[in-house]
Amino acid sequence: MIKIAQALILICLISSAGQVLADDAAATQGRNTLWVVVAAALVFFMQAGFALLESGMSRAKNAVNVMMKNYMDVCLGSLIFWLVGYGLMFGENFSGFFGSTMFAVSHAEPWDYTVLLFQTMFAATAVTICSGAMAERTKYDAYLIAACLITAFIYPVFGSWVWGGLYGGSGWLARLGFIDFAGSTVVHSVGAWCALAGIIVLGARTGRFDRQSGAPRPVPGHNLSLVALGGFILWLGWFGFNGGSTLEANEHVGLIVLNTQLAAAAGAVGALLFSRLTRKPVLLTATVNGSIAGLVGITAGCASMTPAFAAFTGLIAGVISVYGAGWMERRRLDDVVGAIPVHGFAGAWGTLAAGLFLDGNMFDLTQVAVQIIGIASAFFWAFPLSLIIFFLIDRTLGLRSTTQNEQLGLDFTEHDEVGYPEFHQHVTYHRES
Amino acid sequence: MIKIAQALILICLISSAGQVLADDAAATQGRNTLWVVVAAALVFFMQAGFALLESGMSRAKNAVNVMMKNYMDVCLGSLIFWLVGYGLMFGENFSGFFGSTMFAVSHAEPWDYTVLLFQTMFAATAVTICSGAMAERTKYDAYLIAACLITAFIYPVFGSWVWGGLYGGSGWLARLGFIDFAGSTVVHSVGAWCALAGIIVLGARTGRFDRQSGAPRPVPGHNLSLVALGGFILWLGWFGFNGGSTLEANEHVGLIVLNTQLAAAAGAVGALLFSRLTRKPVLLTATVNGSIAGLVGITAGCASMTPAFAAFTGLIAGVISVYGAGWMERRRLDDVVGAIPVHGFAGAWGTLAAGLFLDGNMFDLTQVAVQIIGIASAFFWAFPLSLIIFFLIDRTLGLRSTTQNEQLGLDFTEHDEVGYPEFHQHVTYHRES
Amino acid sequence: MIKIAQALILICLISSAGQVLADDAAATQGRNTLWVVVAAALVFFMQAGFALLESGMSRAKNAVNVMMKNYMDVCLGSLIFWLVGYGLMFGENFSGFFGSTMFAVSHAEPWDYTVLLFQTMFAATAVTICSGAMAERTKYDAYLIAACLITAFIYPVFGSWVWGGLYGGSGWLARLGFIDFAGSTVVHSVGAWCALAGIIVLGARTGRFDRQSGAPRPVPGHNLSLVALGGFILWLGWFGFNGGSTLEANEHVGLIVLNTQLAAAAGAVGALLFSRLTRKPVLLTATVNGSIAGLVGITAGCASMTPAFAAFTGLIAGVISVYGAGWMERRRLDDVVGAIPVHGFAGAWGTLAAGLFLDGNMFDLTQVAVQIIGIASAFFWAFPLSLIIFFLIDRTLGLRSTTQNEQLGLDFTEHDEVGYPEFHQHVTYHRES
Repeated sequence: MIKIAQALILICLISSAGQVLADDAAATQGRNTLWVVVAAALVFFMQAGFALLESGMSRAKNAVNVMMKNYMDVCLGSLIFWLVGYGLMFGENFSGFFGSTMFAVSHAEPWDYTVLLFQTMFAATAVTICSGAMAERTKYDAYLIAACLITAFIYPVFGSWVWGGLYGGSGWLARLGFIDFAGSTVVHSVGAWCALAGIIVLGARTGRFDRQSGAPRPVPGHNLSLVALGGFILWLGWFGFNGGSTLEANEHVGLIVLNTQLAAAAGAVGALLFSRLTRKPVLLTATVNGSIAGLVGITAGCASMTPAFAAFTGLIAGVISVYGAGWMERRRLDDVVGAIPVHGFAGAWGTLAAGLFLDGNMFDLTQVAVQIIGIASAFFWAFPLSLIIFFLIDRTLGLRSTTQNEQLGLDFTEHDEVGYPEFHQHVTYHRES
Repeated sequence: MIKIAQALILICLISSAGQVLADDAAATQGRNTLWVVVAAALVFFMQAGFALLESGMSRAKNAVNVMMKNYMDVCLGSLIFWLVGYGLMFGENFSGFFGSTMFAVSHAEPWDYTVLLFQTMFAATAVTICSGAMAERTKYDAYLIAACLITAFIYPVFGSWVWGGLYGGSGWLARLGFIDFAGSTVVHSVGAWCALAGIIVLGARTGRFDRQSGAPRPVPGHNLSLVALGGFILWLGWFGFNGGSTLEANEHVGLIVLNTQLAAAAGAVGALLFSRLTRKPVLLTATVNGSIAGLVGITAGCASMTPAFAAFTGLIAGVISVYGAGWMERRRLDDVVGAIPVHGFAGAWGTLAAGLFLDGNMFDLTQVAVQIIGIASAFFWAFPLSLIIFFLIDRTLGLRSTTQNEQLGLDFTEHDEVGYPEFHQHVTYHRES
Repeated sequence: MIKIAQALILICLISSAGQVLADDAAATQGRNTLWVVVAAALVFFMQAGFALLESGMSRAKNAVNVMMKNYMDVCLGSLIFWLVGYGLMFGENFSGFFGSTMFAVSHAEPWDYTVLLFQTMFAATAVTICSGAMAERTKYDAYLIAACLITAFIYPVFGSWVWGGLYGGSGWLARLGFIDFAGSTVVHSVGAWCALAGIIVLGARTGRFDRQSGAPRPVPGHNLSLVALGGFILWLGWFGFNGGSTLEANEHVGLIVLNTQLAAAAGAVGALLFSRLTRKPVLLTATVNGSIAGLVGITAGCASMTPAFAAFTGLIAGVISVYGAGWMERRRLDDVVGAIPVHGFAGAWGTLAAGLFLDGNMFDLTQVAVQIIGIASAFFWAFPLSLIIFFLIDRTLGLRSTTQNEQLGLDFTEHDEVGYPEFHQHVTYHRES
């Protein structure tokens, strides 16, 4: 009797233990899904941040155009990444150079959908970086075609080198040990190098540099309240961008997001200090860009740095964003929102910093070398390829609006709508006379 | 001795297993609460999206009025839904036609509060749909009274037919097997049919249609940057709207939110393609409305469709939003923001699609019939009832502002405040001369 | 044989139970981290809400200045709170009066980083309250110095009295049993009393009160759409502010956030009713402030009140915000955004209400007395100290802009940028002639 009772109790316990373990698996899955979905929502919201920042830094006559480009980036980008990009980036990747399964995913495991959702939001971010740099003089259709090609091909192929092989294999940079936790290089630098190619093919806006002397002329953005709001929204979204890249609701998310916060704050302070030291006015635009540079900078190393190094990485990124904006201007490169210094230069610095300040151990030379290889391969992949794409678009459809359209504003000429129809505006197309 | 040791171990194991199960219950409750609260926050934020979208599509002289209507929708709606609506919608429902307990909940289980919170945010959404359609010519007090009646009565009674009986019983449409996961019909179509009644009683804005010929005249919105931002915020909030309707943080949320994303993207693309095919300009307002139509469309079937069908549902919803806006205009129905095509027509389509594309099995005729019954009963419940309400308000208090007040702008005449006191505006009340 | 089998099974069960318990600990940690990080993100977003609200209620010529103050509050505040404030507030606190460990945390447990992140967002909130009250006439550098001192010292020391001693010891008000769940007093009143000191030292804006008669003149804000958006964002962020203060993803979060929602809604209704009863126009600014007063009011008691009392607390807070704004105006105190009635007076009321309506048991006199002690000590700590700080800054650097700079607008004179360079604005510096 006692033995039978014991046996029964044991059976109950075994089955209840089994139940508990199954419950735990479902609970873990549920918890991780919850975090990744929330993080995806935050990353999605970054698109609104980009739209506001880019629109606010442009002139009112192009407000609709800038917004439309950002809106369609998300719409076309989401569909194309689902159809093509996700497979190229995350599908089986035994070569190490691109994925080859998981295109147009429509029958998969629940978790696959969650990862696809999160990665879709990332893909949309990369291409949006171009839209800001190339604002105010790009043909709408031509831009959309380039955006689709970047989302479908340039971004996911590079991504596969670092994060690929979720379903088998792994990327060649991942095999080397390249550290880029949430994409200082994979997302931000790649986007910025495409933007650089775009503005080289486009040329500067009419009136941005003096025709004779080549001296730069400021073209102030039309709504700095929107710029600041955009900055706040980007900052907020970055908590999902970096924190969600764990793909797991674990206890380390706290440190990752704290590092993100400190680096952003230090980025703005870096921009402020550098502006003061070089006796330039501390502009709102430079301050917001400084904080975004801090965010870009910490993206690679946010999971493997202490808070003190995170703050330092952000501080330097903020300095780079101001210095880089001047460097670009001296080379007559017209990046409307400062996207290339903020996402490209600060992204490269952040990727390097992730190697330099790894877990508080500075100067592991092998790691630093690997980081440099990764940074360089992003440039040598994305820049020439997008240069070819923009060049071909320019030679066929034409990439740049006519000067007349540019002066009238793209809202009027490309969209049959204006942003603020009731408000008197200064006529801005007399600037270049 | 060995037996005693074994018995002790067994007792320990049993009690620890019991403890683990109790912990698991608390953990599950905590996780679900967390998700539903976050989702409720996202749905709340949709109110800001509606406010921006509606305000941006209206003229500057009514900016305060539009914002105030949206703000008070949430404030009055939350209190009234807590007092009355929640009980009517979710209380014990043995008749199948309305609930009869859980009014003014103040001593309940923790989970009840969480569900009430989430549903409060939904209720506020339904009524806000009216405010956009009826903008620029409705008396403020009259609108608020109608909004209260819709939140207290029209919306929750219909809701009880589909989602009711949380505390016993179930709604008659639920018993038929009607599928409306997150409310394409329950929330969006019901709101839109009330809006349709509202604009019929109100009539068109002065100057919207030519007095002699009846030809439509465009009345451009005053701030398209706000429209785009509103679109982004609504899209973001929808992740909570659809995802949170699981009321559970499980692994299926990923697919639901992915479907939401793809349908929204496809909705904008549908609006774009249809505009291009019919040689109309691709307006920002139409693009944003297309994506919202995609969101409305996928709301019913987001949990029971594959991503490919979700994208298709969104695409058609986007087409419907553009076609529907033209259809309304040809009938001299003046829906300021396009709320009725977007929430009503696309909502009906989405509810049908949820039956058509159920788990990839197309054309289960019974299910399709049930969906049509649900769609029709929403119309025949909400439209006549709200028509009566608006008619009675019009005959007593007056629903419509005087023409003079409409021309001066409701901000000035109803609120003693103007939205942008420092900026020179075009005088817009000379349009109809 | 049987015994060995039983023993083996027991060993398996014990080890699996141990595994399950370890998994549970990690799961709980992960879940709590997830919630606190999401809540921190929501609280962060409140900064955008404050920036929009304060900017929208100011004149266009100061839009950049207001935004920059809010942006730098977060940036400087985050770094300083990490370096100094967190240690003073939460470090080992055996005296009961301030903490003495955890400065510049850089090697800690994962959970410590999460708590630090959440509290950093709170600290930034407290100081931002000052920026709104003191808008449109404060020197930028002088403001930033004061903001740093408040974040580093005034706020955390008072905080340590109520919430301190996370790593040992406890604050003297906590020992008395003072209830302030999420900081009606700790965050909001303290911020408001600093703001009161600031506006007393500053004096009113030029033209705010007539030179001869002292009669108040309205100075309308330049963009009420931004005010309403700011209100929505603050309301949204408050779900994280109150809900996250559990520091735990448990089932009680639902009630806390529901109370928050009802109190905010009732606050706006309170402001509306009081305005109507006193025959004043129901302004958008007053409505938004009413809802924020409701939010401030429920912050102390949101975890220990029933929904009915939460709504009542919010209603009274809304009344207080309107009455308080008139009270301030009659005393020639120029609080640009109404921060002091909203955060100070309503915060004091809410802290009292938390004692009055504790778990539905009204009028526990001891508790009420303790609440009054807490409210009073916040005033007598923060007000005199910040008065001294602002006074010293005024006597050294100068706190107030020159009248000429004030009339030209601080954007032009302090930032070399203007918010809306393309839009014609009314010249507002002729008001006082």
